[in-house]
Amino acid sequence: MGHVVAELVVVPLGTATPGLSPYVAAVEKALEGFDLKTVLTPMGTVVEGELDEVLRALRAVHEIPFQMGAMRVSTSLKIDERRDRRLSMEGKVKAVREKL
Amino acid sequence: MGHVVAELVVVPLGTATPGLSPYVAAVEKALEGFDLKTVLTPMGTVVEGELDEVLRALRAVHEIPFQMGAMRVSTSLKIDERRDRRLSMEGKVKAVREKL
Amino acid sequence: MGHVVAELVVVPLGTATPGLSPYVAAVEKALEGFDLKTVLTPMGTVVEGELDEVLRALRAVHEIPFQMGAMRVSTSLKIDERRDRRLSMEGKVKAVREKL
Amino acid sequence: MGHVVAELVVVPLGTATPGLSPYVAAVEKALEGFDLKTVLTPMGTVVEGELDEVLRALRAVHEIPFQMGAMRVSTSLKIDERRDRRLSMEGKVKAVREKL
Repeated sequence: MGHVVAELVVVPLGTATPGLSPYVAAVEKALEGFDLKTVLTPMGTVVEGELDEVLRALRAVHEIPFQMGAMRVSTSLKIDERRDRRLSMEGKVKAVREKL
Repeated sequence: MGHVVAELVVVPLGTATPGLSPYVAAVEKALEGFDLKTVLTPMGTVVEGELDEVLRALRAVHEIPFQMGAMRVSTSLKIDERRDRRLSMEGKVKAVREKL
Repeated sequence: MGHVVAELVVVPLGTATPGLSPYVAAVEKALEGFDLKTVLTPMGTVVEGELDEVLRALRAVHEIPFQMGAMRVSTSLKIDERRDRRLSMEGKVKAVREKL
Repeated sequence: MGHVVAELVVVPLGTATPGLSPYVAAVEKALEGFDLKTVLTPMGTVVEGELDEVLRALRAVHEIPFQMGAMRVSTSLKIDERRDRRLSMEGKVKAVREKL
């Protein structure tokens, strides 16, 4: 119970420049400290692991842009959990590819 | 630090019928047990309070559709936090209305 | 077919200051030019109408922060459509409230 | 103007079973008919191309679960566009990786 695949996006608002990659890189580095699989996509980070660990990670990475000087942060999390069988990042993509 | 406005959406998948209001109502009732302001909108629930309390609430309400028999749940959270001044649900809407 | 309730959020990135209400107000004003019901919430705008009109509105409001000087814009749309019966903003909230 | 990276997620609600991969596979196949780069992730599909083409694709794929028997569909789109320089899926990930 509680094994999830989720998407995490951390966005600083009101930064001086439109580029956000330094913030995203700092979030990626911080995620390495948690017991989660992570995959960086062009639109966010997909994570897999226990929901409680995902929420601890979210709590930590939401702070990162503030530590880097941002005054406003928008953090989004979308959790997908299935309890008839356990979801995995690979399994979800494989299930679709098998039908293509 | 940590006072946020956020949007919370809990959606059961594979529920046989397209109506979701019993699930949403159960989530709303459960949210009353947390130290958060809440406003139900047609697309989710806006909450305001400490981020740690928001995450405790998310953890609790994500379980509700499972307890009601769903086998898959998609839970989304979008957090908005500002540290140059404190955001509130009313303040955010008022700031826009004043400019209309 | 095609009558939807949806949520629309337009966010400029890299705007130098964390306040976004001038952008949101300009988006609200522009939405008045479309055949849609709209309700401003603390986390976005809920709209109701034909999907094609919602997409025309999205196309227009996504341009607004660029016209106001932003160099990067993040625009989100979440569409909810039901075809066994027609969803409305009021009906969705009422269905939940009746169960509370 | 109008070249975007975006994330597209199409979810049928009230299907009899929690598995959604047949629907996602049908959406992926349909996306091949549009002038877009696409990458399937565990949480959705990232697309790149002209915004107008993205919106045409969204309009088409939102219909697919209905055609397959679903009575309710939730379709989400998140658009990222930058006008000081052109975003690409590869460029966004590369910019982060270079900082790790």
